[in-house]
Amino acid sequence: MPERLGRYTLRLERPAGVLGFAAVAGKKEGEGPLGAAFDRVYPDADLGEASWEKAEARMQGDALRTALDKAGLSPAQLDCVLAGDLLNQCISSTFGLREFGVPFLGQYGACSTMAQALGLAALLVECGAAGRCAAVTSSHFCTAERQFRTPLEYGGQRAPTAQWTVTGAGAALLGPGGAPRVQAVTFGRMRDLGVKDASNMGAAMAPAAAQTLCDFWRDTGTGPQEYDLILTGDLGAVGSALLRDLLRREGLDPGGRLQDCGLWIFDRAAQDVHAGGSGCGCSAAVLCSAVLQGMQAGRWRRVLFCGTGALMSPTSSQQGESIPGIAHAVLLEARGD
Amino acid sequence: MPERLGRYTLRLERPAGVLGFAAVAGKKEGEGPLGAAFDRVYPDADLGEASWEKAEARMQGDALRTALDKAGLSPAQLDCVLAGDLLNQCISSTFGLREFGVPFLGQYGACSTMAQALGLAALLVECGAAGRCAAVTSSHFCTAERQFRTPLEYGGQRAPTAQWTVTGAGAALLGPGGAPRVQAVTFGRMRDLGVKDASNMGAAMAPAAAQTLCDFWRDTGTGPQEYDLILTGDLGAVGSALLRDLLRREGLDPGGRLQDCGLWIFDRAAQDVHAGGSGCGCSAAVLCSAVLQGMQAGRWRRVLFCGTGALMSPTSSQQGESIPGIAHAVLLEARGD
Repeated sequence: MPERLGRYTLRLERPAGVLGFAAVAGKKEGEGPLGAAFDRVYPDADLGEASWEKAEARMQGDALRTALDKAGLSPAQLDCVLAGDLLNQCISSTFGLREFGVPFLGQYGACSTMAQALGLAALLVECGAAGRCAAVTSSHFCTAERQFRTPLEYGGQRAPTAQWTVTGAGAALLGPGGAPRVQAVTFGRMRDLGVKDASNMGAAMAPAAAQTLCDFWRDTGTGPQEYDLILTGDLGAVGSALLRDLLRREGLDPGGRLQDCGLWIFDRAAQDVHAGGSGCGCSAAVLCSAVLQGMQAGRWRRVLFCGTGALMSPTSSQQGESIPGIAHAVLLEARGD
Repeated sequence: MPERLGRYTLRLERPAGVLGFAAVAGKKEGEGPLGAAFDRVYPDADLGEASWEKAEARMQGDALRTALDKAGLSPAQLDCVLAGDLLNQCISSTFGLREFGVPFLGQYGACSTMAQALGLAALLVECGAAGRCAAVTSSHFCTAERQFRTPLEYGGQRAPTAQWTVTGAGAALLGPGGAPRVQAVTFGRMRDLGVKDASNMGAAMAPAAAQTLCDFWRDTGTGPQEYDLILTGDLGAVGSALLRDLLRREGLDPGGRLQDCGLWIFDRAAQDVHAGGSGCGCSAAVLCSAVLQGMQAGRWRRVLFCGTGALMSPTSSQQGESIPGIAHAVLLEARGD
């Protein structure tokens, strides 16, 4: 059974480990700094499918299938898959994972979904509700752009604070005996400081990230310096600077340990992505490539993965709502303590 | 720890019980057969809010607040809320539950979301990940109609197989010691027989309901006759008839025990709802009123609640996709065996 630490954090007693993982990504992501770490890079945006939405769905299926293959597992050896994406009614997960025939629990935490799914999957394994459980998410620049913003053909100018939705997907399989292990989970509360600018998601999400990270450190009686890597999902340049500022006000200075998937996946100087990468697929593709590879290679031992999400829709923004942020933290350790 | 029965079913060892519940509903639902069972019936569709979407969000908040009040609990006594709805990016849950300040995990299982959230909540309580956990969902005729179909003002003619999205929300609080208890959970797999008619969700969902119910009965070594009530979420008249036919082919005849929330909530002869009610709020409002009240009053002892969902979006339908169904089953018992 998980042990509750403080108010919001759960420490796992028999930590679920990573049995397999895979990341797939688009052409632009493949040309970025992490390109060599992805299991597969597609040469175009439609993957030969009839629509970008079908392409995104296929990425989820490809990610899960590759992760299973790498782990030597079949879909029938999974008890549950937790998956989500940014599209209306989470259709990338539905159509990408339909054929696997595994009990399916759709998750929605906007861009925090990978951390949410990973944390829940770890708990289901911890308590024996699932022998093996998968967490899968995706995003796609073209599907997100036309759903949340404008038709691509419109060619609208982007704000300097805007981020570039990652085309990619990641899948992680959890079960007993794998590595690294999920040692602790902190599920976040919504935090809304009134940001209404849908072109500045980093600002909307940073306060939630600060809240969840501070909850985690308070609950565990630790501080940033005890982690080799503290990795937020997709705060980008603007949100990351705000997070550092918010942590500084709490007397915390994580220094170079604090990094962001949205800043890792693209070369901002060369790739014209403004404030950095974003999307459900951003943190998933980075986690399920460079991060887990790096942990297995001994580069980092304790990684605090903090997925960040902006809980809004075009409808809520059009109706004048602000953008609540949310963040979930998952502690990965190369070996159990 | 939950015990795995057969391939897909989890039996809880220390079953989480219902500590409190509440249902709120719209005017039309209030005029239906269950009107007197709802905690609150709103006199109009907008609840005095500036939009139907804001009204739906308020219903979720009202349902959770009422359930907490009835149980004598405060939001701070909840460790987690699992919630979802049908709107793009689940904004009813976001904006309805934002102010509660409880760790939030968004769920998406289309109209099956209440069963999914209830099952997951029971597992989180079972394994100690949450002391108390809430499951909340909603739907609203006006928000669903304009998002999934046509502007209300268009006044489009409805197909005889079409269902009427319920305006309502339900919230259930789970924790140790409550009643009835969640004794078992079967999470469903997607099932897609190629139905493409978005005006016939019952047909799209019935095969998934049959699959999950058969999984449950096979795994537990029981049959329909051992349950006082087998309640599907929103198959309506068409889907319910198909489900009976599919079960008959498996040699199962549940008879009058098999009922459907979508057929209970409206008087089809008098209320012009075609094939019956539907929506995330349909099964939630029925469960959190007549069903839980009836169980507490001794009317039913063993209720198998089977939420049903159609995993589609207007985009997926426009792109020619079929409609995968999904169903999750939760066994409620008035007292533990």
